[in-house]
Amino acid sequence: MTDRPVIALDVMGGDGGPAVVIAAAEVAQERYPRLFFLLFGTQEAIREQLLHNPRVAGNSIAVHSADVILGTDRPSTAVRRQRTTSMGMAIAAIKAGEAQAMVSAGNTGALMAMAKLTLRTMEGIDRPALAALLPTLMNDSVVLDLGANVECDTENLVQFAVMGAAFARTVLGVERPRVALLNIGEEELKGTEELKMAAALLRAADLPMTFTGFVEGDKIGAGDVDVIVTDGFTGNVALKTAEGTGKLVTGLLAQSFRTSWLTQLGYLLSRGALRALGRHLDPNAHNGAVFLGLNGLVVKSHGGANVRGMAHAIGVAHDLVAGDITRRIARDLDNFRTHRPVVAANDGHDASVA
Amino acid sequence: MTDRPVIALDVMGGDGGPAVVIAAAEVAQERYPRLFFLLFGTQEAIREQLLHNPRVAGNSIAVHSADVILGTDRPSTAVRRQRTTSMGMAIAAIKAGEAQAMVSAGNTGALMAMAKLTLRTMEGIDRPALAALLPTLMNDSVVLDLGANVECDTENLVQFAVMGAAFARTVLGVERPRVALLNIGEEELKGTEELKMAAALLRAADLPMTFTGFVEGDKIGAGDVDVIVTDGFTGNVALKTAEGTGKLVTGLLAQSFRTSWLTQLGYLLSRGALRALGRHLDPNAHNGAVFLGLNGLVVKSHGGANVRGMAHAIGVAHDLVAGDITRRIARDLDNFRTHRPVVAANDGHDASVA
Repeated sequence: MTDRPVIALDVMGGDGGPAVVIAAAEVAQERYPRLFFLLFGTQEAIREQLLHNPRVAGNSIAVHSADVILGTDRPSTAVRRQRTTSMGMAIAAIKAGEAQAMVSAGNTGALMAMAKLTLRTMEGIDRPALAALLPTLMNDSVVLDLGANVECDTENLVQFAVMGAAFARTVLGVERPRVALLNIGEEELKGTEELKMAAALLRAADLPMTFTGFVEGDKIGAGDVDVIVTDGFTGNVALKTAEGTGKLVTGLLAQSFRTSWLTQLGYLLSRGALRALGRHLDPNAHNGAVFLGLNGLVVKSHGGANVRGMAHAIGVAHDLVAGDITRRIARDLDNFRTHRPVVAANDGHDASVA
Repeated sequence: MTDRPVIALDVMGGDGGPAVVIAAAEVAQERYPRLFFLLFGTQEAIREQLLHNPRVAGNSIAVHSADVILGTDRPSTAVRRQRTTSMGMAIAAIKAGEAQAMVSAGNTGALMAMAKLTLRTMEGIDRPALAALLPTLMNDSVVLDLGANVECDTENLVQFAVMGAAFARTVLGVERPRVALLNIGEEELKGTEELKMAAALLRAADLPMTFTGFVEGDKIGAGDVDVIVTDGFTGNVALKTAEGTGKLVTGLLAQSFRTSWLTQLGYLLSRGALRALGRHLDPNAHNGAVFLGLNGLVVKSHGGANVRGMAHAIGVAHDLVAGDITRRIARDLDNFRTHRPVVAANDGHDASVA
């Protein structure tokens, strides 16, 4: 088992519970036959699901955990139950060297707090960031931070850029990712001081990426950059705004199709196209956000993910383990610190308006 | 002319120039026959357009301005040309009491800087905010600030809420608008200290609105609140992300319809429905962002607005003048200060994760 990629699964997390998580593991194991799982959850639940999922049954070890973190648990109370919960024990398996990554569809705040406390941030990283893939008109883009840090300084943003680029190389297979900072204008004078300093540093640094400067929110979805870097507050709002707008447009579309018998007929004929669109935008097709910057890989699935979505999240964990992303990030950061450019602070005039 | 609503137009602003602005004034004058215009621009351009737009010709005074603010002008240099440019002179007409509002499709940064310098902020307002209407599944929502202020404190957010509610009452006709703060979670513990304090103040205050707490980005577009309040950085990113996602979805839809002859036929039959959707989402149907909090009304049109869009922006100016929004805001603010609730600062624990 030692030379196979081992992923710890929080079997109890998410709306679908053990049935979805273990069925997803079955799909992932078929896709990546070398995968081996550590399953954390109640013995009964795991045993029942393994009856229906023979590949997982033959390529896993079940570890009983008596306790479960609920969606309503506060991070501060969750961390005290690290040793008894499926989520906490799955994280501890990384720390103990028994697994290279863990996947959970449970409480995001609890997962983040537990993962930080147990795994600690990598050397050179002040704060971990939550990164995910978003659909665009072309290839997917990596966006980070999606909510791990409400406020971010220049160093955080630069570190996020380094981590996001490593993520894009590993998961998207882009040799030299195009990286941009999210801002309210593309001109160098726009935005906060933190953003301007981060841009100056990234422009001057010799990193394995092409820094393209600032992008505005309307470029999320355009696909002309591979990595979009922002603070966790803005990233979270942007992600959810994109989701909400997607729902708005498809909702209006459904209303429009109902206006006459002609448009209803048109709808019937176009159903295939509309379903293809739905699949492309389906969050399950992009499921699996990653906490980058910890000594170990923690992948967060949507709570409401289906089997396909959860299997995608496990696939993301597999790719990041196979691509040895933690070592890539460590090397890039070390290189950045050794050759850190000296950059003067910009003056802040004319910086306020969009 | 004194008892008629007078709107000053920056005839030279926007991609469409005088032809679009004056044709839009013609449409607006037909819709609101009492409107009277002050037209600021080069004499030749105005004279030529008035030949084609008889209603404006009969209900306006043209004022020659030799100079124009370009899209590339920096705000700091623009303000020095306040007295000679069409934009600056139109703003000055409000200050002089000759107009109650002005509309420009020109350089946003220059407009903001000039308007602030000339009109000054209202008593009780620390910073003006840029507000606009966004389409939702139900009625439009007001969102502010959309980019006037990169960073906002608690007082700014509370003032934005008061101004946004007055805007919703005036333009949407909602007697008691539902107002919410944009955040990365709906729980009281989420977000920055500024947001938590603003929420506590708005919850305790006796204002002509229903404060509904925090909303997340995916509620932009849902239509279940009337006013969404946020800082200018986040608001700008959210607005542009919504625009970008709208383009992404409609772009993918167009790709999907091209996949087979069946879907192409479906497209032909559904064209009417798709056009209706396009009209609903068309930025021109929602054009006209307002700088609230100044001693005078300044309406910013999209630079690329067409005649319909520009006419909508002029209509927004008309409605705000007719509804006497500046006095409403002054009264609500005065009332808030007199009865300001005393609220304790929350502790900041568990505040970071989405």
